[in-house]
Amino acid sequence: MSDSFRDWMKATQANFELSLAGFLPAGDVVPERLHQAMRYAALDGGKRVRPLLVYAAGRLFDAPAALLARAATALEMIHAYSLVHDDMPCMDDDALRRGKPTVHVQYDEATALLVGDALQAQAFLVLSQADGEGDGDAGQASRKLAMVRLLAQAAGSVGMCGGQAIDLASVGLALTQAQLEQMHRLKTGALLRASVLMGAMGGKTLTTVETEALDSYAAAIGLAFQVVDDVLDATADSATLGKTAGKDAADNKPTYVSILGLEASRLLAEKLCSDAHAALLPFGEKAQQLHDLADLIVQRKA
Amino acid sequence: MSDSFRDWMKATQANFELSLAGFLPAGDVVPERLHQAMRYAALDGGKRVRPLLVYAAGRLFDAPAALLARAATALEMIHAYSLVHDDMPCMDDDALRRGKPTVHVQYDEATALLVGDALQAQAFLVLSQADGEGDGDAGQASRKLAMVRLLAQAAGSVGMCGGQAIDLASVGLALTQAQLEQMHRLKTGALLRASVLMGAMGGKTLTTVETEALDSYAAAIGLAFQVVDDVLDATADSATLGKTAGKDAADNKPTYVSILGLEASRLLAEKLCSDAHAALLPFGEKAQQLHDLADLIVQRKA
Repeated sequence: MSDSFRDWMKATQANFELSLAGFLPAGDVVPERLHQAMRYAALDGGKRVRPLLVYAAGRLFDAPAALLARAATALEMIHAYSLVHDDMPCMDDDALRRGKPTVHVQYDEATALLVGDALQAQAFLVLSQADGEGDGDAGQASRKLAMVRLLAQAAGSVGMCGGQAIDLASVGLALTQAQLEQMHRLKTGALLRASVLMGAMGGKTLTTVETEALDSYAAAIGLAFQVVDDVLDATADSATLGKTAGKDAADNKPTYVSILGLEASRLLAEKLCSDAHAALLPFGEKAQQLHDLADLIVQRKA
Repeated sequence: MSDSFRDWMKATQANFELSLAGFLPAGDVVPERLHQAMRYAALDGGKRVRPLLVYAAGRLFDAPAALLARAATALEMIHAYSLVHDDMPCMDDDALRRGKPTVHVQYDEATALLVGDALQAQAFLVLSQADGEGDGDAGQASRKLAMVRLLAQAAGSVGMCGGQAIDLASVGLALTQAQLEQMHRLKTGALLRASVLMGAMGGKTLTTVETEALDSYAAAIGLAFQVVDDVLDATADSATLGKTAGKDAADNKPTYVSILGLEASRLLAEKLCSDAHAALLPFGEKAQQLHDLADLIVQRKA
């Protein structure tokens, strides 16, 4: 990874954190405790992979920064809500997330449920609000509505929630690699794909060819992301991960490592990274950040 | 209530049920169990007050039927998801809803959590999808985006979820009537208000005067709805209600009946109904259904 990519990434993450803080209701707005818990759940955590994808894809067609900030925030709110709900006792029952107590541990279960519900609504609110400039601009309304549609599909029962349901149903089962892929394509892949497409469509209406190329890229990094997750869960410690390590094996969950073994999983991640790079070729130099993000996803240590 | 109102109501409810069934993923689509549980939670239940309000308000400015069906479905999906989550063990822990076992009893807790999450996403998907005709119509994109905004605000932390948080925090506390009103204004009032406004704005962009009149109507019926709920909870039996009666008192929750007494609560509901009727006067005969719906809300027995 180049220094200029690292600089871009740090600046983007810092800018995003400011946007996100501004788009969350303040902690002194009624009901205070709910708003504080929403901020606890969403701020100050994670690598912000989805926002980075939004901004990187936004450069392809010079999307306006204000629109990208809304798309990135909406995606990260959906992601944050899913983590809060996944950690609850009736799901994964996890006490640690991003190095902090999970929301139901820090607050309580009922609050965790509401935090997730309210973050999902807030995501659609932020995405659909006007920006002042371009306000009443009918072209931008159509584009935003298309983004709402894409986000709702990626978050719902044939996207993230659907993947979660398949995951739940598969605990203790011997999945094939194809079944495992389908689960992850929904559970994490759908939102990563939406990140890439929403960023790109912030700049223009995408052609079928452009959408297909970005789909190939997104499918490859989505799968790579999960393969690396499984490798890290099997090899890293909890302190590095900021969440409980070795949990998949303990929960008897099927993973790439349990199906393919460690070495073949690492090779698969490398191959997916090459596939992602290849898919970006039609976009030339404007896709450099997307290219480097694929490397980041495969080379990450946590 | 006139026969023509009853006929309109029955026809509207029947039409709505068909729309809702069509806008939910089929039970044989993967993941099947999640989709079956979503249909179990949303179909075949309730008085469909929010859809009735959407259609009644849609008549004010002759909104297109296809757009009203989407708005009504989205609102009812948000309402249905909130019931599923509210019934969960970490919230109200209720086993009976609309005369059937609640979702976490019929399925399991994790599925109930995902059903609610997926129904919320589905609501925004249905609202943002195109209808064929008027597709690419920029005016309709702006109106739909405004509806998304209104629904997200009404569902989120300064709307329904916020009211739920205040409700949780107030169990066992002696609330004043003003505090109780604020809680209900968010918890149920926000979504009823959104129903009225979304129906009306389906026909045209509302003026400030029109919005204020509809706000007054919605505020009055929203509060009346809750007062009547409290009266029924204290006086009706579980079989009539289709949910556990007497639960508020058992849970030591503040209600209008506990603060004002039964008789004063009934009088308050009557007064709110008159207020609602008065707010509709500027709209003339086109508001007849909204007028009759206020009566229905106050006179209902379950």
